[in-house]
Amino acid sequence: MVLLSGGLDSATVLAIARSEGFETYAMSVSYGQRHIAELKAAAEVARQLGAHAHRQMQVNLDAVGGSALTDHSIAVPETPSSGIPVTYVPARNTLFLALALGWAEVLGAHDLFIGVNAVDYSGYPDCRPEFIRSFETLAALATKAGVEGGSFRVHTPLIQLTKADIIRRGAQLGVDFAATVSCYQADAQGRACGRCDSCRIRSEGFAAAGMADPTRYQA
Amino acid sequence: MVLLSGGLDSATVLAIARSEGFETYAMSVSYGQRHIAELKAAAEVARQLGAHAHRQMQVNLDAVGGSALTDHSIAVPETPSSGIPVTYVPARNTLFLALALGWAEVLGAHDLFIGVNAVDYSGYPDCRPEFIRSFETLAALATKAGVEGGSFRVHTPLIQLTKADIIRRGAQLGVDFAATVSCYQADAQGRACGRCDSCRIRSEGFAAAGMADPTRYQA
Repeated sequence: MVLLSGGLDSATVLAIARSEGFETYAMSVSYGQRHIAELKAAAEVARQLGAHAHRQMQVNLDAVGGSALTDHSIAVPETPSSGIPVTYVPARNTLFLALALGWAEVLGAHDLFIGVNAVDYSGYPDCRPEFIRSFETLAALATKAGVEGGSFRVHTPLIQLTKADIIRRGAQLGVDFAATVSCYQADAQGRACGRCDSCRIRSEGFAAAGMADPTRYQA
Repeated sequence: MVLLSGGLDSATVLAIARSEGFETYAMSVSYGQRHIAELKAAAEVARQLGAHAHRQMQVNLDAVGGSALTDHSIAVPETPSSGIPVTYVPARNTLFLALALGWAEVLGAHDLFIGVNAVDYSGYPDCRPEFIRSFETLAALATKAGVEGGSFRVHTPLIQLTKADIIRRGAQLGVDFAATVSCYQADAQGRACGRCDSCRIRSEGFAAAGMADPTRYQA
């Protein structure tokens, strides 16, 4: 069970899960984020990387807001900030993992993959290893599978990698990065702004990996 | 932050939270359950009991199925069963609490209320006290509020009560049980089938409490 956003990181996670021999089921979540292009990218990435199935969940997080990604009255920052950024979506990974856990339980799967990584967890609380371990504990208590003696593992293969490491790993595994969308405010065609935090980190990652950046940018 | 299903239990929880002096925010979740009547009841209950605000979240759990409540090809049982019933929705309370946690964080609230109870947790893994405690641990790790030193409490005022106890407590606090819908397969007008597990437990609760059952039943 792979959480697939349509970005570079989760695409690499899907490729890693496949390379480890897992039959992969990809889940994307439409939660009122600004750019539907990310979800189109997820469907294409799932197809390219041979996911056995792909589901798109819908959750109206814009009903509660609280983030630049779900409340369109909060601007996406275009300069680096310290602390937890306004693009933090309250309880997002808890929600995503809960959705993934539900589908995993229906399928009888016990392995969840999520593309949290070192660059993210410097700012987002729900990208830290202690959060992930706590979710595994919860999952065993929350489910019929857990009561019956099963357990769930949340795989975070990127958690200690830099963006450049992730890009190199994805490239080795054949990820088509041109199909992925990382930008917080991509346009309808999936073209990146080139200015937001996510664009900046991605662009620096390709440079540090010594690879050409295949990202499609807005004019 | 009160999770409000439209049933008898969560209505009582909302009344308890108000009686304890909390300003209450009620959240209901439309997750592909069979009866939209339950959600209409939630809105009415929130209004009657003076919730400061009420939000309805939408999640398409029917995309993953796995329960008689979300997969309409699985029949709702009309005789008592042992073990975890087919009306169990995989990871439902994890999901509901994740949604409530997100809104709580946006509001700066630290108290979540959920109407799990003894009758439920005999069958549903995510109604057990150890699940609730584990979610509190997770919530502190998952959130910006937690990183900043805050914590979350998940209140479960019904967890040790029988259905009759809950009904007596709700009645004391002025809950209009006729406005609540517990039935797993209520009709569009919110009238109960009188045959499913949930109807049976509710009906026996009124009898045990020595109160007239105000439930509106189908002809």
